[in-house]
Amino acid sequence: MVKKLIIKSTTFGSFILHYSITLLIIFGLISSSKVEAKTRHLKWEVKYEFKSPDCYKKLVMTVNGMSPGPTIMAEKGDMIVVEVTNGLLTENLAIHWHGIRQIGTPWADGSEGVTQCPIVPGDTFVYLFAVDQPGTFMYHAHYGMQREAGLNGMIHVSHPKGQPEPFTYDFDHSILLTDWWHKSTYEAATGLSSLPFVFVGEPQSLLIQGRGQFNCSLVNSPSDPDICNATRPDCSPFVLTVVPGKTYRLRIGSLTALSALSFAIEGHNMTVVETDGHYVESFDVQNLFIYSGETYSVLVKANQDPSRNYWATTNVVSRKPKTPTGLAIFNYSPNPPLQTPPTIPTSGPAWNDSVPRMAQSQAIRARKGFIEPPPATSDKLIMLLNAQNNNSGHIYWSVNNMSFTLPTTPYLVALKEGKLRGELGRIFDHGAPPDGYDWVNYDIYNPPVYPSVTFSNAIYRLKFDTTIDIVLQNANSLTKNNSETHPWHLHGHDFWVLGYGNGKFDPFKDPSKYNLVDPILKNTVPVHPFGWTAIRFKANNPGVWLFHCHIESHFYMGMGIVFEEGVEFVGKLPSSIMGCGETKGLINP
Amino acid sequence: MVKKLIIKSTTFGSFILHYSITLLIIFGLISSSKVEAKTRHLKWEVKYEFKSPDCYKKLVMTVNGMSPGPTIMAEKGDMIVVEVTNGLLTENLAIHWHGIRQIGTPWADGSEGVTQCPIVPGDTFVYLFAVDQPGTFMYHAHYGMQREAGLNGMIHVSHPKGQPEPFTYDFDHSILLTDWWHKSTYEAATGLSSLPFVFVGEPQSLLIQGRGQFNCSLVNSPSDPDICNATRPDCSPFVLTVVPGKTYRLRIGSLTALSALSFAIEGHNMTVVETDGHYVESFDVQNLFIYSGETYSVLVKANQDPSRNYWATTNVVSRKPKTPTGLAIFNYSPNPPLQTPPTIPTSGPAWNDSVPRMAQSQAIRARKGFIEPPPATSDKLIMLLNAQNNNSGHIYWSVNNMSFTLPTTPYLVALKEGKLRGELGRIFDHGAPPDGYDWVNYDIYNPPVYPSVTFSNAIYRLKFDTTIDIVLQNANSLTKNNSETHPWHLHGHDFWVLGYGNGKFDPFKDPSKYNLVDPILKNTVPVHPFGWTAIRFKANNPGVWLFHCHIESHFYMGMGIVFEEGVEFVGKLPSSIMGCGETKGLINP
Repeated sequence: MVKKLIIKSTTFGSFILHYSITLLIIFGLISSSKVEAKTRHLKWEVKYEFKSPDCYKKLVMTVNGMSPGPTIMAEKGDMIVVEVTNGLLTENLAIHWHGIRQIGTPWADGSEGVTQCPIVPGDTFVYLFAVDQPGTFMYHAHYGMQREAGLNGMIHVSHPKGQPEPFTYDFDHSILLTDWWHKSTYEAATGLSSLPFVFVGEPQSLLIQGRGQFNCSLVNSPSDPDICNATRPDCSPFVLTVVPGKTYRLRIGSLTALSALSFAIEGHNMTVVETDGHYVESFDVQNLFIYSGETYSVLVKANQDPSRNYWATTNVVSRKPKTPTGLAIFNYSPNPPLQTPPTIPTSGPAWNDSVPRMAQSQAIRARKGFIEPPPATSDKLIMLLNAQNNNSGHIYWSVNNMSFTLPTTPYLVALKEGKLRGELGRIFDHGAPPDGYDWVNYDIYNPPVYPSVTFSNAIYRLKFDTTIDIVLQNANSLTKNNSETHPWHLHGHDFWVLGYGNGKFDPFKDPSKYNLVDPILKNTVPVHPFGWTAIRFKANNPGVWLFHCHIESHFYMGMGIVFEEGVEFVGKLPSSIMGCGETKGLINP
Repeated sequence: MVKKLIIKSTTFGSFILHYSITLLIIFGLISSSKVEAKTRHLKWEVKYEFKSPDCYKKLVMTVNGMSPGPTIMAEKGDMIVVEVTNGLLTENLAIHWHGIRQIGTPWADGSEGVTQCPIVPGDTFVYLFAVDQPGTFMYHAHYGMQREAGLNGMIHVSHPKGQPEPFTYDFDHSILLTDWWHKSTYEAATGLSSLPFVFVGEPQSLLIQGRGQFNCSLVNSPSDPDICNATRPDCSPFVLTVVPGKTYRLRIGSLTALSALSFAIEGHNMTVVETDGHYVESFDVQNLFIYSGETYSVLVKANQDPSRNYWATTNVVSRKPKTPTGLAIFNYSPNPPLQTPPTIPTSGPAWNDSVPRMAQSQAIRARKGFIEPPPATSDKLIMLLNAQNNNSGHIYWSVNNMSFTLPTTPYLVALKEGKLRGELGRIFDHGAPPDGYDWVNYDIYNPPVYPSVTFSNAIYRLKFDTTIDIVLQNANSLTKNNSETHPWHLHGHDFWVLGYGNGKFDPFKDPSKYNLVDPILKNTVPVHPFGWTAIRFKANNPGVWLFHCHIESHFYMGMGIVFEEGVEFVGKLPSSIMGCGETKGLINP
């Protein structure tokens, strides 16, 4: 019930009152409205450990010794308190709660440089936030390129007990998909900044729930003969054991650093019922396409020949795959869990056929009975050209030819703290980033004619409570006949997905094709090769919010922007988010 | 002349006056006493880059793109200002100025956790200190195990112009010796903390002035065939070109992470004339033994057959070597610099013969005419048993069975800042660490009977201006018939080396053998296997100072202690050293 309370309170009048209150009052609201609401108190230590997720031994960034980290299990309306201790030796840290809107707690979003200073080694930082929507969410490191070092996990927020969901199932399981390199994230990042540019290459493995199987015969390391060992139990395939006849809800999330994926369970249909915390008008797929930052719930019925096991597979799409199929076992009880299925695992749909991927995107609509209609019109349109750039040998990604850089002082503190407000121009670039690009003349089907780029940490300051339309426009990269899929993730909001198209978006014609009837709400959406994607959101969550390509290297190379809205309604900032850049002197212990 | 001024001012009365003044006044003293004194302003950016110091491509922590970093060239009395910008992506940083006593500037010592908070990415920290003694010093990272990632370099402080040195030479050159691994420091550190313990192994290479030559035929990496490439120019041997008949001062420093070394120039004698900034009563060696943290100046005359080149070699001693000889070329002009000498490089003296190493240690005396006699007696004796420990599978190093851990709040700030003084017990352990061990009964020739250990960050609080004797007592490690050489480095001071001995030090008998006549002053000294080393220092430099084994993994595993002396005379701390642990709220911008 908290969700409705909060939504009601977003009418402007009561808003000021609502958001200037402290978290204690949020607690109060929850406990008064819903006696079952709980506070879930978690203590996490993050450190490096040697692990062999795909049989190859490597340092992995773990939470309490695990990667993926523990799944946060909660019920709608709960407060989550995560005490994160940085047990790394010399590296800082920040953790983002992906899909949690952080209403009333914008400082808990975990975006280093945007909402907080990084957590230094030895420090403990407390993330405190409400999970106000049921659904499937995730968490991951949000600092440098640490996400691909293994700090990731899932958040299951269940419906309040006694309130039935619009579909039924017998069991509920998580499957987190990631891609995995044998080189460190530091090597990956340094290569991206090097001259000449050094690409770390395609991932060595795809991991299903943290497990993959690299072909150790490709490794020859006389100095460390045990570096790859296919007999290690931690790289035996992930097994999902099912009872014949039962129905399973699989909560599938992707936190790949680079790869767009297809996912299939041999011989079984999957019925898509939820994405990013919102119910989908259900439809069946054999292959689920999933992009980094997305979650899907699918229902799978164990209705096949129970005398054998089946492959669950994941494959790269949208980039020419050099990574073997990721494998897990869909195990019919009581067959032995690791009994190899008698078939050859599929290599998935054609990597370069974007038609079925576009079709899946367009098939996703809000479920009848759960439609939250969007505002009929918007107050502002921002068109974002997705481009790749080349500046004297360095490669960048940009939107509207602006490549994003993070400031050393988090925007949220810079904007809120009176002492800093006179110095904003010193903390980040003045002025507004461009709302569009030369859409009439720009040729999206060829590499950019002018590949040079501007660097900026300027932000979009949105008028509070207005409705914003964003059109993501894809284009050719620096390579001829190439356009990459970019999954864009918005912090602090869900947005309505109004439409997808091929080619260049025409702001005069294409809005007429928008789906204003039953658009799905999501927090992450792909823009397909040479295509466009249109989304709408209400700028009604006071705070400062990243919107960025969820491919880790693309964001590192500048593919992101930042929105500010209603920062004047943000409550007193906890000083725990301060301590870096210009915020050093602001902490009052 | 600054040195004398400062030494005079260490009588207690004038001390308070002296040390409560600010750095500006130090500037004033220098400029009034010596008009030539300069301020040397350096701007450094630290970042990771791909380098191939031994032909194997690896991330290296560089200063302005270099490893070793730029040599700081200064003259006695100069002020050094180093603006260090942390250009790493997610790692913090601190830089120690090894051998610089930081008189009046204890906050500039660069020991993370002791004198400062780490420098976070994007921040610029200004180190400002005087170089008040001529001689050969070094700098290196002092945070986590970053030193072995390549952040190191040398500091040459020359005699004031017009004041002749007690020996002559034509040219002056640096040679920094390091050991080098192909695995990252993060892997090395994680292994040390893992259960079971994982040792990163002996170094792959020894580097002479940042260059080594790994045998690339040992590497087979189909996925990255260029990872080791012997034709890369950055791993061609270091060449020291000499003119026949000329005399060269070679300033040799060691910043190895693990290895004790011998160093030789084929066919040439080396005359030892300086160590750690103090003149040595000169003596000749064919092999110079050098331990991590030490510097030596040697004079070498180019007096051999000039028609060919000669090998300069470095080899591991004191551990069974698994690392090939490090090679450089002593090139007689005009022979081609890289012309291979016609001989086979020496593999150096027997690694396990400690007799010549002990002999070199004992041969080092202060040069006549430059003897600064030690106080005749000491006020306090601290005996430090060097032991290896095993706690439920984890391995530690300890002194007096106490394994040192760093607090998250730097001691210097904790002790100086009034707001924190009531909370000292929360910041670091109360009480004094033990001044000795059960020397009567402890068997130094066998592994410890009770290998368990106490963890502590308690410190020794020394009475100001008293004279302290330290006896380092070596012992058997956890391995039978094994005792490792530990090079101990004291921050903030030079100490007199009173004596070395074999076996167990007897506090009733052995002090009578101390050399009180011409002991050398040093800042780093080895304790030889199964032996002892006695040193004396005046606790007259207000501040908080580490004393630790300079083997990076040993310090990481607990082999260190901390002294506080006269912290009440330390001037106002710069807030730039704060921002971590309990010091977050103390910064006044």
